[in-house]
Amino acid sequence: MNNLLVAQSGGPTTAINATLVGVLQGVRASTKVDKVYGAKNGIEGAIYGNLIDLNELIKDSQGMDTLTYTPSSALGSCRYKMKDWKVDEEPYKKIINTFIKYDIKYFIYIGGNDSMDTVDKLSEYCRVNNHDIYVIGGPKTVDNDLNLTDHCPGFGSAAKYIATTVSELERDINVYDIPAVTIVEIMGRNAGWLTAASALARVNGGSGPDLIYLCEKPFDYDRYIQDVKDKLAQKPGILVAVSEGIKDSTGAYVSDSMSSGEVDSFGHKYIAGSARALEQLTRDKIDCKVRAIELSLMQRAAAHIASETDIQESVMLGLKAFNCAVEGETGKMAAIRRLSDDPYRVEFISVPVSEVANHEKTVPLDWITPSGNDVTEEMMTYLRPLIMGEVNLKYENGIPKQYKLY
Amino acid sequence: MNNLLVAQSGGPTTAINATLVGVLQGVRASTKVDKVYGAKNGIEGAIYGNLIDLNELIKDSQGMDTLTYTPSSALGSCRYKMKDWKVDEEPYKKIINTFIKYDIKYFIYIGGNDSMDTVDKLSEYCRVNNHDIYVIGGPKTVDNDLNLTDHCPGFGSAAKYIATTVSELERDINVYDIPAVTIVEIMGRNAGWLTAASALARVNGGSGPDLIYLCEKPFDYDRYIQDVKDKLAQKPGILVAVSEGIKDSTGAYVSDSMSSGEVDSFGHKYIAGSARALEQLTRDKIDCKVRAIELSLMQRAAAHIASETDIQESVMLGLKAFNCAVEGETGKMAAIRRLSDDPYRVEFISVPVSEVANHEKTVPLDWITPSGNDVTEEMMTYLRPLIMGEVNLKYENGIPKQYKLY
Repeated sequence: MNNLLVAQSGGPTTAINATLVGVLQGVRASTKVDKVYGAKNGIEGAIYGNLIDLNELIKDSQGMDTLTYTPSSALGSCRYKMKDWKVDEEPYKKIINTFIKYDIKYFIYIGGNDSMDTVDKLSEYCRVNNHDIYVIGGPKTVDNDLNLTDHCPGFGSAAKYIATTVSELERDINVYDIPAVTIVEIMGRNAGWLTAASALARVNGGSGPDLIYLCEKPFDYDRYIQDVKDKLAQKPGILVAVSEGIKDSTGAYVSDSMSSGEVDSFGHKYIAGSARALEQLTRDKIDCKVRAIELSLMQRAAAHIASETDIQESVMLGLKAFNCAVEGETGKMAAIRRLSDDPYRVEFISVPVSEVANHEKTVPLDWITPSGNDVTEEMMTYLRPLIMGEVNLKYENGIPKQYKLY
Repeated sequence: MNNLLVAQSGGPTTAINATLVGVLQGVRASTKVDKVYGAKNGIEGAIYGNLIDLNELIKDSQGMDTLTYTPSSALGSCRYKMKDWKVDEEPYKKIINTFIKYDIKYFIYIGGNDSMDTVDKLSEYCRVNNHDIYVIGGPKTVDNDLNLTDHCPGFGSAAKYIATTVSELERDINVYDIPAVTIVEIMGRNAGWLTAASALARVNGGSGPDLIYLCEKPFDYDRYIQDVKDKLAQKPGILVAVSEGIKDSTGAYVSDSMSSGEVDSFGHKYIAGSARALEQLTRDKIDCKVRAIELSLMQRAAAHIASETDIQESVMLGLKAFNCAVEGETGKMAAIRRLSDDPYRVEFISVPVSEVANHEKTVPLDWITPSGNDVTEEMMTYLRPLIMGEVNLKYENGIPKQYKLY
């Protein structure tokens, strides 16, 4: 028996199930795999033997279609970080036991940096110990910070949500004729890609964010206040987009500037985000209405406004990962290579996972304007194709239909 | 000349431009109005004579269609509260001057409680002073708190956004197999309708929010903690929906419990929302991961997931308001009367604006479960039809097209 196991890990996205479906479509159209299983809660499912039989699902075309557009990880997720097998071999032995018990020959792990580290370590362990098992990674992360791939599944959909939402917020904050600053906090501790995507709110002529601060450049408080004052001199409603992870010149998170004292009646420190910290600063330095908004989990969960380009590419990456495995590759990750921006053309390739694991691809500094408060045209050219296309969702009783695996 | 003036006021919604379009369609198909103008920033535009000529717009079918689905108030808004004319007649005189200058015979004011108060006072002023001017209100408010109408334009779309978002968040928070509480704060200082709409996340079999607290019932901290503990005993990921305006038994806002001390490095008090306050309380009392999410302005601005039922009804209410005015009514508001729930049937009526102004329609207490942490089946029956139907938006470059009036 040549069976296949698939699992999902890390923070959910709206496209991670599309990649799962790509793997399943690969199994469905191939004779190289006998049975297909899913591990519950990522690698933990493989360690503890919590497997789900997916052989009925792959016969269900409608179910697979609904699953493609269902947000979050249908198989569950985990944040389990595997130690080197020379340090702690126990989890590896347990995984191999599960693989033997279920005749698993192919293992596809869909996730981000940490998951690719697992793919790297596990494929090496299998190689060194002569297990005939092929381990391949499927990329996933809204943060868009994986190395060796032009962009990451999930990012385009989050970018489309952010661009749309910022364009809607721009309309909302401009109805009153009084000075007001609205600060929108966008995900990204170390990589500012998602914050940069807020600039896509301008693609149809809107002003979008008036100021954009990415976490790649040190944040200067005085410069920020001057930037806001300059913008307020031009018009009343100002929209600011900031990365969750902006840091000052000493490397300290701006969000930490808020959590310095006793803040609540229960004696706990209050941990605010970067937007809340800037809200306070702005209110202190500029006499006007100020509001902080966090796009929070919505930016990675808003499947109702996913990018069809992202969803289709995510399916293809699942299929590519499947093909890599059955063609005998191991320790690789399926990836996207961009061939041209306009017309937008890509190809799907495999890359060595060891060069992906534990790297972070941040925004090139020369894609941020010299003033440090906006992105360049190169960034716009890179981002534009990724949000193109609308998903054709099935609605039931007024909300999008979802597929629940368990 | 019999000209018409239209204006928008109060907090924006995704349907307020649909009502504006309804008024304009009325003008377009009628011979009773010669010219149509819009006042900028609500009644302030009428006071200061800031009018926009809309006579070209009403010939532009595509522009009108795009405007119908554009969020926020295209004419701008204000928070201007008119004093009684016996106390301060000056603004009334200025408005009448504008009316005379532009030959305005009909004035339609789209807004919420405060705007209906303006309609009430201004129509009375015109009547008493024998001005041949007809003043009609068009309802608008995401809060759904207007008297004498079954529901309010803008509410259904906000409800659809909330139901969809909560159903997506439910998937997101359930991927890890560890105890976690996510608290979602929803708009509503005194009326819990929008928070109740979170229950619509269950319409396709999802669990939706595990606990729902509306601002109509006093919030009991101890009871809340026990509720959360009970739910955590059943499953790991718990979703709580709370109104912005929940208050304890003394009438104090729960959100105020957070802003008691010095909280930031700039010496300012931090004003948190109800979800942030409960986040702190939960973290203090229960040892698990806790997260607060505010749906903030997105819930009233998310035109990309508007309810088509809401948009179509909003257009009809604009048309109804127009017809009331040209048929010689004044001091009235266009409203919705529900005829049946299933099949859903409504009719459009006019109601005396004096009975709408300065009233707030809150959730009936018997539509909240006796436990105080959920809504009843009557509420679900009321809510279900309001989120039905999806808007057929035009996208350009990956984001929805919008119409900008100025």
